[in-house]
Amino acid sequence: MNGSAEWTRLLELARRAGELLSSASRTLSTAESCTGGLLSGVLTEIPGASVYFLGGIIAYHNDIKTLWLDIPEQVISTYGAVSAQTAQAMAKACRERFQADIAISITGIAGPGGGTLSKPVGLVYLAVEDENGGRVAERHLSGTRSEVRAQAVAEALKLVIAAAVARS
Amino acid sequence: MNGSAEWTRLLELARRAGELLSSASRTLSTAESCTGGLLSGVLTEIPGASVYFLGGIIAYHNDIKTLWLDIPEQVISTYGAVSAQTAQAMAKACRERFQADIAISITGIAGPGGGTLSKPVGLVYLAVEDENGGRVAERHLSGTRSEVRAQAVAEALKLVIAAAVARS
Repeated sequence: MNGSAEWTRLLELARRAGELLSSASRTLSTAESCTGGLLSGVLTEIPGASVYFLGGIIAYHNDIKTLWLDIPEQVISTYGAVSAQTAQAMAKACRERFQADIAISITGIAGPGGGTLSKPVGLVYLAVEDENGGRVAERHLSGTRSEVRAQAVAEALKLVIAAAVARS
Repeated sequence: MNGSAEWTRLLELARRAGELLSSASRTLSTAESCTGGLLSGVLTEIPGASVYFLGGIIAYHNDIKTLWLDIPEQVISTYGAVSAQTAQAMAKACRERFQADIAISITGIAGPGGGTLSKPVGLVYLAVEDENGGRVAERHLSGTRSEVRAQAVAEALKLVIAAAVARS
């Protein structure tokens, strides 16, 4: 998020997602961990986003994931906060709680700290939940904390676009 | 948020807020409306933000303000979603729900649409809630949607810094 080019590219993806959601009359909610609100911040930079964007939850601390998103502690303790299972549980709970048509979640390790051998910096899970159920994507991103986060936001926007296209 | 200079300035404020919160061992949560996650996105761009940042709620649609933040519909219907009263109720509920030491809320009209004579584009209310109770700030910002949102984030970060300084 250091340069304008990166921000401009994210805005283009957010605009495309917004157009598709609008034309399909579908609503979106978000559940963010490692991106910490950046995905929602990009989505709402687009004028008129209130037509399709309901809101989001930033579950940065693990307690918030269990407290606000009703994610069983067992899921986090068994698979970890950065896991396909947690991402899917976040998206599912987010869709229900916001009564949205589509929910997207992101959990990952943005770095520079927090990485391990099995879960290195740059590992990100994204999940989409809609009326067809859920699907999850695993991404291995590289770069600085800022670059990993921006790429994660871009990946999330692409998943929203794909979900919106599937119905528009 | 179009240029790097603006982003860099916001990051400097977020870094300063983070240093103060860290040294005072205090936690923060956010409740955003018109900034749509941008404040939290800037806060979490700082490495190690998980030490003090718990999470946030993006209450973009009014229903989310009542549903997630338990803000009485009467407050919104009487004073409006963009009002000192709603900002204060958002911050108060946010602090309670996240069990944070300090909560900050933002509600405003980023534009380009949505402005009225009595509540023009650029009108933003920010509220802080901590162990000393709540206080609210009214700001009249100017510029594009993007500029209004970036200024609102800067104002919010300054309020967090002031709240953290008061105790550190």
